[in-house]
Amino acid sequence: MQVDPIGIIHSPFKSKNETPIQPFESNAVGRVEVFKQYKDGLCDIEGFSHVILIYCFHKSRGYSLRVKPYLDSKKRGLFATRAPRRPNRIGMTVVKLIRRSGNVLIVRGIDVIDGTPLLDIKPYVPDFNAQGKIKIGWLKGKLR
Amino acid sequence: MQVDPIGIIHSPFKSKNETPIQPFESNAVGRVEVFKQYKDGLCDIEGFSHVILIYCFHKSRGYSLRVKPYLDSKKRGLFATRAPRRPNRIGMTVVKLIRRSGNVLIVRGIDVIDGTPLLDIKPYVPDFNAQGKIKIGWLKGKLR
Repeated sequence: MQVDPIGIIHSPFKSKNETPIQPFESNAVGRVEVFKQYKDGLCDIEGFSHVILIYCFHKSRGYSLRVKPYLDSKKRGLFATRAPRRPNRIGMTVVKLIRRSGNVLIVRGIDVIDGTPLLDIKPYVPDFNAQGKIKIGWLKGKLR
Repeated sequence: MQVDPIGIIHSPFKSKNETPIQPFESNAVGRVEVFKQYKDGLCDIEGFSHVILIYCFHKSRGYSLRVKPYLDSKKRGLFATRAPRRPNRIGMTVVKLIRRSGNVLIVRGIDVIDGTPLLDIKPYVPDFNAQGKIKIGWLKGKLR
């Protein structure tokens, strides 16, 4: 399947070394520029406090099936991590929607490199998330 | 960017008409078959109670920037909905991980059509989600 950017994410992070390790560590404000031809699709989005950005890890090349996460000392299965080097370079982040102005969303909590190609925006709805008891595997005790 | 399936999601739903409208309405059990060459990437995933499946809405064709959601009587901006007809046909669902057996994950809460191409799996980590007060726009009062 071919996917094509519907916009560009502008952030204060000029390189991978500057991005926060995990999204919840970011308080950074970003500008999500949706290409003009898709602007009408942003209607009603102001009603949501948070949105999900789906994007391409455009600087990533290749992947390994076992990776040592920054938060850990052991190699872990790739799909048990959010490492950017993946068979399909698709990333997702939940951000706070501060405001919309035309085809641009101003968001807080961005953690991607400036210039990241945007693939989709979805409304964030807590009911669609995990319900019941939640376990976070190897990450347990590693988050602040 | 080209994306290619890393597996296939097997579900009890043979057509779009059979799928639940929203994921939280589903208690259905599905089988996520990850192609054998990616099996090592599933290591450590058993530690997580929930995972995020990223997939292709492979039966969708075209899109409209304004859509009338099933739960609503008004047309809404496409990016304020999770309608499957989108510029990039990427879907995501949080499911409960019941167990792994080799390259197959047995999951609960599946809401996709049988045979859906799997693009990625990410661990579900509540800390990476929205924090603070949450608003859900036009969906307010529409969820059970």
